[in-house]
Amino acid sequence: MIRIEFQLELHYEIDAQGADFVFNVHAAQTPRQTVSGEQLSLSQPVATLIHTDPFTGSRHLRLRAAPGPLHLSYAATVDLVHHIADPQQLPEVPVCRLPPEVIGYLYPSRYCQSDRLGRLAIGTFGGMRQGYARVQAIRDWVQSHVTFLSNTSNANTSATDTLVDRAGVCRDFAHLMIALCRALSIPARFVSGTDFGADPALGPPDFHAYVEVYLGDRWYLFDPSGTAIPMGLMRLGTGRDAADVAFATIFGSVRSEAPFIRTHAVVDPARGLWLPQPDGRALSTDGGFGAAPPT
Amino acid sequence: MIRIEFQLELHYEIDAQGADFVFNVHAAQTPRQTVSGEQLSLSQPVATLIHTDPFTGSRHLRLRAAPGPLHLSYAATVDLVHHIADPQQLPEVPVCRLPPEVIGYLYPSRYCQSDRLGRLAIGTFGGMRQGYARVQAIRDWVQSHVTFLSNTSNANTSATDTLVDRAGVCRDFAHLMIALCRALSIPARFVSGTDFGADPALGPPDFHAYVEVYLGDRWYLFDPSGTAIPMGLMRLGTGRDAADVAFATIFGSVRSEAPFIRTHAVVDPARGLWLPQPDGRALSTDGGFGAAPPT
Amino acid sequence: MIRIEFQLELHYEIDAQGADFVFNVHAAQTPRQTVSGEQLSLSQPVATLIHTDPFTGSRHLRLRAAPGPLHLSYAATVDLVHHIADPQQLPEVPVCRLPPEVIGYLYPSRYCQSDRLGRLAIGTFGGMRQGYARVQAIRDWVQSHVTFLSNTSNANTSATDTLVDRAGVCRDFAHLMIALCRALSIPARFVSGTDFGADPALGPPDFHAYVEVYLGDRWYLFDPSGTAIPMGLMRLGTGRDAADVAFATIFGSVRSEAPFIRTHAVVDPARGLWLPQPDGRALSTDGGFGAAPPT
Amino acid sequence: MIRIEFQLELHYEIDAQGADFVFNVHAAQTPRQTVSGEQLSLSQPVATLIHTDPFTGSRHLRLRAAPGPLHLSYAATVDLVHHIADPQQLPEVPVCRLPPEVIGYLYPSRYCQSDRLGRLAIGTFGGMRQGYARVQAIRDWVQSHVTFLSNTSNANTSATDTLVDRAGVCRDFAHLMIALCRALSIPARFVSGTDFGADPALGPPDFHAYVEVYLGDRWYLFDPSGTAIPMGLMRLGTGRDAADVAFATIFGSVRSEAPFIRTHAVVDPARGLWLPQPDGRALSTDGGFGAAPPT
Repeated sequence: MIRIEFQLELHYEIDAQGADFVFNVHAAQTPRQTVSGEQLSLSQPVATLIHTDPFTGSRHLRLRAAPGPLHLSYAATVDLVHHIADPQQLPEVPVCRLPPEVIGYLYPSRYCQSDRLGRLAIGTFGGMRQGYARVQAIRDWVQSHVTFLSNTSNANTSATDTLVDRAGVCRDFAHLMIALCRALSIPARFVSGTDFGADPALGPPDFHAYVEVYLGDRWYLFDPSGTAIPMGLMRLGTGRDAADVAFATIFGSVRSEAPFIRTHAVVDPARGLWLPQPDGRALSTDGGFGAAPPT
Repeated sequence: MIRIEFQLELHYEIDAQGADFVFNVHAAQTPRQTVSGEQLSLSQPVATLIHTDPFTGSRHLRLRAAPGPLHLSYAATVDLVHHIADPQQLPEVPVCRLPPEVIGYLYPSRYCQSDRLGRLAIGTFGGMRQGYARVQAIRDWVQSHVTFLSNTSNANTSATDTLVDRAGVCRDFAHLMIALCRALSIPARFVSGTDFGADPALGPPDFHAYVEVYLGDRWYLFDPSGTAIPMGLMRLGTGRDAADVAFATIFGSVRSEAPFIRTHAVVDPARGLWLPQPDGRALSTDGGFGAAPPT
Repeated sequence: MIRIEFQLELHYEIDAQGADFVFNVHAAQTPRQTVSGEQLSLSQPVATLIHTDPFTGSRHLRLRAAPGPLHLSYAATVDLVHHIADPQQLPEVPVCRLPPEVIGYLYPSRYCQSDRLGRLAIGTFGGMRQGYARVQAIRDWVQSHVTFLSNTSNANTSATDTLVDRAGVCRDFAHLMIALCRALSIPARFVSGTDFGADPALGPPDFHAYVEVYLGDRWYLFDPSGTAIPMGLMRLGTGRDAADVAFATIFGSVRSEAPFIRTHAVVDPARGLWLPQPDGRALSTDGGFGAAPPT
Repeated sequence: MIRIEFQLELHYEIDAQGADFVFNVHAAQTPRQTVSGEQLSLSQPVATLIHTDPFTGSRHLRLRAAPGPLHLSYAATVDLVHHIADPQQLPEVPVCRLPPEVIGYLYPSRYCQSDRLGRLAIGTFGGMRQGYARVQAIRDWVQSHVTFLSNTSNANTSATDTLVDRAGVCRDFAHLMIALCRALSIPARFVSGTDFGADPALGPPDFHAYVEVYLGDRWYLFDPSGTAIPMGLMRLGTGRDAADVAFATIFGSVRSEAPFIRTHAVVDPARGLWLPQPDGRALSTDGGFGAAPPT
């Protein structure tokens, strides 16, 4: 089991009209990601509403903040018990056999214009044998054709931009990989979360954006930017693309400070807590839909 | 009550690999749009799967077609009992009081890049009094600034394109209106359906794309292209934008013919069946979420 | 020598306000493309102004047409004496040694956003040995990664679009090749002209768009769409991209018919007139700038 | 007369391969902008080539820098004797009567996609009386619909982006105004230069981007960003848009420091040197083409 301790602090200065917030800072609750303890505190005594998405386990906190400062701090202990599968056993699933909840992840979205990438995707990956290995080939193509560079992309940058500009950050890698998968009729979605920061060469722990692809009977993890160890990824939000899973969507006029974030993997072999490791197998932190019905 | 008789025929020629289809041709089932009779027939003896979206009442038919011709014909009798409200009583709803199911319609999507339109939307509509009248002003602005012209837009055209090019068809008008609403934190979504073709000057009955905006406690109809009588609109699919509600999403290589479509309003005052009419009041074919909780 | 007989007819219906035209239908006059005879006739008795660009030899005809029909017909006999060079002897020229008139063709233009393609171009072609062979590799890459398909692109389609969509017509191939060359600091420009229609499999003779690249001391021909025999290309206009060299730029409201065009290679070995042939050598129809000054 | 003293310092660190530069830092020489003294110094003893564009008076300095530091410093004393005209006497010029050198400024360019703005431009400005006042109305529209904001646009931002995003810096204002003018068949071009920094509220003197529009028989100045006093603008480069007139276009791998720039208006009424002032009349620093020939 992987145990992540996660801590986040956000600071805002709200203008005179006040502002509505939708936060997605709670660790998601899935069949394989459980929250053994958590604590939220807010500097304003406002009413809050938490809604858990029944399909993805994302938790959204809504509130209306009054003018002045707003501080949010959140801490959680999160346990991951990965579903692990043999990549060679994971087929792509024909559209007519996908669970209904998965169909929406075949369609183009704000940052993933899969409708435009059909010729490129089929020309590059169409001849490969279907299954996990083909998705891995897409991941590798994205990683090798795009350069990780800060300050080359912005909040408006989409998969087609990244295909042209060939540079970006984790979110851009994720959007391009998702768009290519969907262009091949493979369901793919965007996950916001954290990496656990084990490796100083990868920089301090931070928010991270990565990809899930539906294979066999569930969603499997892929990290197209290659900057994280997938086993240590902790999920906050899940959606079609970055538009759905901002850690804070703000409606109103607000000044923000850079978020403070800390994640840490608790290692204690005696209690079965291990350090996340690179792993060539297929990993999922989601529940399965059961065997797809026979054709 | 409005009764629409709807008939649709689709013809495809499937290539040697076969193809998967997701059809969205069934009339949706909502609290105020009921299907009193319907018939579907397919020329291939294939297994089909119908899934009804629990939130929108959209029905998706999935099947895998074999190589060769595929004909689909569908006919339905659909009854509309509109919820009618006084526009002056319909407020915009603060984000923190929206039903959770509505939140997703605040975010940008493939064809509605509301994240880019904040300054334009606030500069143009920010000073108006909130509520139905402001949404109507957005609708009117779109109608008056965009010219209805066939063959000026295509499947890739988005709201920002239409803002620049100032021409398009009903789908383009819808995308631009939706993007402007969302840029003002007003939930808005895309509906595919049919107009009933009462007015020969508006052309024969056809597929139509229009808009729903969340006001008060439910979704209200708007037709930014101004080419239909809203009271006669019959709903097929509901989604974030056109990417979600194509009448046929095809995975595979297929030749298509133009669809045949017929809609007709049954008028029989003795049975309470009326001709759809222009109406200055606010119309909804959706159920309400109940009063929003007090702030 | 190649002799092309070229004939063109254009038909317009001008609206009540009249309209200004800039035509670029005259065969260009370059050191190696000479016009041995030509005839222009116009159905309206209007004043015309012809301007020959001193650098490219393009000829622009301007006129103001009155309301009603306007017919233009133009015929010319055009002789091409190609400058032929050994591809292995053609180096790329460092920016500091380029003729001043050539510098402008290094910059991005309306349809050739070379400023965005630096990483892709350097990643794909940066390691190759400089010179004609590298430019040929760019041409081959464009031809093999883009599919020639009518009705997939439009007047707004640019090189970055084609890079994403991977389909287009000759103009789109040309724009993408030009943008890639400029991204590598290799001057490249757009030529509108005609192919001579020798091969029925390539379709009837038509307008054609192709590319010139500056190597050694002059501009050499490339046909990235692979649909023409370069030796048979006859030049009308030369510019940064299609924005500069439309055969008719119209200022006003006008209905157009499809142009009629005929080109024909006169073959008469006794007079030294040969059929254009595929040729592996480097061809130019432009004059040279003389040896670049030594560094 | 306005006398500007201009001083510029640029610092680069060139990588191991060396780099080619095209600088456009010399004050342009036009019939009404003369350089009474100037001094250029370079830290590397490299060969330089200066080319003066015969049409615009722009001067381009080319050199190939060796690895290591490169410092360029340039100082000039520049005298401006404006051509001043009565705005009411300045007509738009029909396309068929424009000087040939002006025609190119009617076409769309990298950052000014005038081909897409026809409907918007005609819908907004088409009904106005032609002439200087209409161009002024375009300028005012751009100034009032776009917000001056740093860090909202980047090197890839074009007129259509600014139309959507409604924010940018002087270069973005200029691109949008140029595109709107061209969409109405009014020649417009981009000028890079300096403002003279008289007003501390406008910030320190800096590079500035502004617009020239062809009216009557010459190019007149417009400042759509409204951040400068047009009379104090000193011209460096002139082109279709920012792609043509970067103060430094670099071919190679280089690190840059922010440029140091100083401009200063010498005021000495005894010698006829005046402070630049806001002025409601039409100003030009360009020579005239003489009266357009009668229609």
